[in-house]
Amino acid sequence: MKKGLLIVLSGPSGVGKGTVCSVLRHKMPELVYSVSATTRQPRQGEMDGINYFFKSKEQFQDMIARDALLEYAEYVGNYYGTPRDFVDKTIAEGKDVILEIEVQGALKVKDKFPEGVFVFLLPPSLDELKQRITGRGTETTSVIDHRMSVAVDEMGLIRHYDYAVVNDEIDAACHRIQSIVTAEHCRRERFLAGYAELQAVIEKAKA
Amino acid sequence: MKKGLLIVLSGPSGVGKGTVCSVLRHKMPELVYSVSATTRQPRQGEMDGINYFFKSKEQFQDMIARDALLEYAEYVGNYYGTPRDFVDKTIAEGKDVILEIEVQGALKVKDKFPEGVFVFLLPPSLDELKQRITGRGTETTSVIDHRMSVAVDEMGLIRHYDYAVVNDEIDAACHRIQSIVTAEHCRRERFLAGYAELQAVIEKAKA
Repeated sequence: MKKGLLIVLSGPSGVGKGTVCSVLRHKMPELVYSVSATTRQPRQGEMDGINYFFKSKEQFQDMIARDALLEYAEYVGNYYGTPRDFVDKTIAEGKDVILEIEVQGALKVKDKFPEGVFVFLLPPSLDELKQRITGRGTETTSVIDHRMSVAVDEMGLIRHYDYAVVNDEIDAACHRIQSIVTAEHCRRERFLAGYAELQAVIEKAKA
Repeated sequence: MKKGLLIVLSGPSGVGKGTVCSVLRHKMPELVYSVSATTRQPRQGEMDGINYFFKSKEQFQDMIARDALLEYAEYVGNYYGTPRDFVDKTIAEGKDVILEIEVQGALKVKDKFPEGVFVFLLPPSLDELKQRITGRGTETTSVIDHRMSVAVDEMGLIRHYDYAVVNDEIDAACHRIQSIVTAEHCRRERFLAGYAELQAVIEKAKA
């Protein structure tokens, strides 16, 4: 059985990761979205195992202790993390998993799951990123400057990623990501792992 | 200026490289086909620089001596080879070049041009390959057996390639190759080489 891929989609704040991910959901219905674990309370309509795996603080800390998370972080008093189990089970079934995550979290995932495919989403230019950050609301100049400086530092982390995708136009960015997924399945090492007959042929030819 | 890619499409005899290549020509009109040099006489309607670069034996041997060929071979008394110059010029213009070539030739190209993207076309199964080889004409069993044994040896050379593409259905195979080309342009190292602004940002963030 050929294993699925873990695709990690990241990029600086304001680049449009969430939008690209939701458009991909429609274009690639076969992609499974990684479900996060959290200690925050479920909101109206949220379902355990669908929107999140809802955990108590004790359960979450136990997952940390058991190294059961590919990454986690604390945010406004609650834990959020990526359960390794869900990813492992899904790719073992031959399905691809996508994880949308900020830049620092993605690097933690890379430590624990280096065989993932790490995709960095980029703005067409720094000016364009500034416009997107500014366009979000009525922020002060100093807040915008701070966010830009954080985003620029985040962009420096692209050197740890496998692929760079410019989010110039959402459909074009999604098309590039789809191509990356298709191409990664064709990579010789991955491909051969799922093609027993050919492996036998290669061994014979080598001998 | 972002450089183009050299895509080398190879695979065992009988796998359908030529057919896949001619369908790709229609699907990817932006792809430039590598033009071979040869010492054979031009046939009716063949144009120098379009179908082949037609060379005298002396000219061809001079190209060999100058290391001006990515690979060459002698076949029925004539030389055939891939001029490096044409590939270098075309990718310097930012265009992608595709080279369809048999398995041994591709490995010679890899020696001289390791930055190429090496794609190995595979039959869906050995039975299917045997049917394709048999289906070519009224060959004797021993000829078919010999061809199969050569093809199996050739398949063992897949270990030197970057990608494996199954030619189960021509459109599907072409779609995979198109995806590989798109994805390779997104590979971080290649991408950054053509994105000066971002390189400056990364240097700044590292410092």
